[in-house]
Amino acid sequence: MSRIAVIAGDGIGQEVIAEAQKVLAVALPGYEYTEYDLGARLYNRTGEVLPDSVLSELDEHDAILLGAIGDPSVPPGVLERGLLLKLRFEFDQYVNLRPSRLYPGASSPLADVKPGDIDFVVVREGTEGLYTGAGGNLHTGSPAEIATEESLNTRYGTERVVRDAFERARRRRGHLTLVHKTNVLVHAGGLWKRTFDDVAAEYQDVTTEYQHVDAAAMFLVNRPHTFDVIVTDNLFGDILTDIAAAVTGGIGLAATGSINPDHTHPSTFEPVHGSAPDIAGQGIADPVAAISSTALLLEHLGRADAAVAVNAAVERELASRDGATPIRTGEVGDRVAADVAGQLS
Amino acid sequence: MSRIAVIAGDGIGQEVIAEAQKVLAVALPGYEYTEYDLGARLYNRTGEVLPDSVLSELDEHDAILLGAIGDPSVPPGVLERGLLLKLRFEFDQYVNLRPSRLYPGASSPLADVKPGDIDFVVVREGTEGLYTGAGGNLHTGSPAEIATEESLNTRYGTERVVRDAFERARRRRGHLTLVHKTNVLVHAGGLWKRTFDDVAAEYQDVTTEYQHVDAAAMFLVNRPHTFDVIVTDNLFGDILTDIAAAVTGGIGLAATGSINPDHTHPSTFEPVHGSAPDIAGQGIADPVAAISSTALLLEHLGRADAAVAVNAAVERELASRDGATPIRTGEVGDRVAADVAGQLS
Ligand SMILES: CC(C)[C@H](C(=O)O)[C@@H](O)C(=O)O
Ligand SMILES: CC(C)[C@H](C(=O)O)[C@@H](O)C(=O)O
Repeated sequence: MSRIAVIAGDGIGQEVIAEAQKVLAVALPGYEYTEYDLGARLYNRTGEVLPDSVLSELDEHDAILLGAIGDPSVPPGVLERGLLLKLRFEFDQYVNLRPSRLYPGASSPLADVKPGDIDFVVVREGTEGLYTGAGGNLHTGSPAEIATEESLNTRYGTERVVRDAFERARRRRGHLTLVHKTNVLVHAGGLWKRTFDDVAAEYQDVTTEYQHVDAAAMFLVNRPHTFDVIVTDNLFGDILTDIAAAVTGGIGLAATGSINPDHTHPSTFEPVHGSAPDIAGQGIADPVAAISSTALLLEHLGRADAAVAVNAAVERELASRDGATPIRTGEVGDRVAADVAGQLS
Repeated sequence: MSRIAVIAGDGIGQEVIAEAQKVLAVALPGYEYTEYDLGARLYNRTGEVLPDSVLSELDEHDAILLGAIGDPSVPPGVLERGLLLKLRFEFDQYVNLRPSRLYPGASSPLADVKPGDIDFVVVREGTEGLYTGAGGNLHTGSPAEIATEESLNTRYGTERVVRDAFERARRRRGHLTLVHKTNVLVHAGGLWKRTFDDVAAEYQDVTTEYQHVDAAAMFLVNRPHTFDVIVTDNLFGDILTDIAAAVTGGIGLAATGSINPDHTHPSTFEPVHGSAPDIAGQGIADPVAAISSTALLLEHLGRADAAVAVNAAVERELASRDGATPIRTGEVGDRVAADVAGQLS
């Protein structure tokens, strides 16, 4: 039986995760879960973000379902680094997966796109690059201050995520785009490009392409339909996935998995949106992204059938919306859960 | 009399610069210029990109007008680093200025914007960050390879560009957005944020805002009208300005200045587009971006009146287009030059 650690977190995290769990209850019947009260409340009470003992407990689970963390009462960066990034690094979640689809009913800011036109995934490296914290400051606060940030990249880390991306491309439409900035970042760019080319030789059935990050950012806006799978480094992936969310109607609908494909530690699944304290507790938050994250979770646990059912139900839910009637968080969860139940029965 | 170094460069660079010079001839009558044959031809003939002697000669000029460099015959990165970036670093062009406007007649991929809605400038740092080349590779080509890239940032370099951005905000609508990634890049982000806050105290008339780069990338797509001036580091600026170009109708229309505001060395002005070898020599390249770059050049040389005239003429040129009639490079230059001449006479 699957054991899921649930970190609902702050603000609307609580509400949307309740709906995600309604869906999980029918998609993964009898799953066991443990709730962890992490986020702003714990931090404000104890000064702790992720105690070692909790990290060990989390490690006993098959997956982590996370709502959202963050609150104006906590200094920026503390929870992000202490919880989200800590999980990615400690649990070796090297594949940060972000599917982008323009759903029927979702409204894109782009003029000439219709549902179905945009359908790609970004495979973002999750454990290297500029996210390691390497770097420092000297003469801080003085006119002589300098600050460095170091991007650390290994063949090991690059190859494993590139391989994962090729596998995903093979299971999709067979096209993979490497995004980097090889014309300026020659050291890391050289490593990425050589690794990509080496692995590509083993995947003759996948067509490949290279784009500089600035060009890719532009193409995501003016020709997003040309992408199938994108593989890129940690920071570029962070930026590109937010552009991807924007062109598909906002981060309100996007879900993400921080995945350890080798299952040596649990993977984390979460909506991309934040804790939205301004609308928390009113029952009006859209739980669709949280629900979509359960589809990624199900797929990771080998339940592709249930994942497909959840995605189909989400698609119907969005298509059924008229854009005027306000969303009721609990009703969305009920509808999607019922739809999934119908499909799987 | 102003002395302009003209580097028309490769591909359509030749054609569009000819038109830009038609406009300069009326906007800056009697200006002196020297042509430099740099780019793919020189490199393929001699293996040199920017000989020291040429660098010294360029340094004798008040400004550089550049068309485009790049050709498939040259390995990627060679001309970019050897010429464009070299000029930025050698001539201390620390303000990389990219105005973004949605012109009447230009077609944005965004649905709900009309001409005038988008009007902001990005002030990108041009001499620090991840563009210095610092970093290296170890065990290259082996499974043990590592690669580093180092972002180098100084209070000196950060403060001067932040100050420049505040000055520009003051001359515009008085709103400045700092973009960085302080929640992850704590060392460089800390320096940028502290510098920004310190300088902000001297500009009480400018309202300020901070955004993480991923959020800013998204906002450029789904609410670009909220920006006035953006200040950011070298790499983030590279990415954000291409998104900006995309939402305003493509890099075909954007111009940029790599500016040394202290005039201790010449500044470079150029269209953002590349050399487009596929359409070169046919007289169908749009010279509007190259012409717009002369407006930035004129402003830098203290000829704000002429810059305004060029921008107005460009705006009329774009508004007059029906989107169907093909562009003739030479005719565009003639029309804009005549318009500018009329305004300044
Ligand atoms: C919250 C932040 C640390 C995080 C990141 O930069 O990776 C977020 O933007 C994301 O994309 O998951
Ligand atoms: C060509 C390249 C080196 C350059 C950069 O990265 O700065 C370009 O993209 C730009 O924006 O001017």
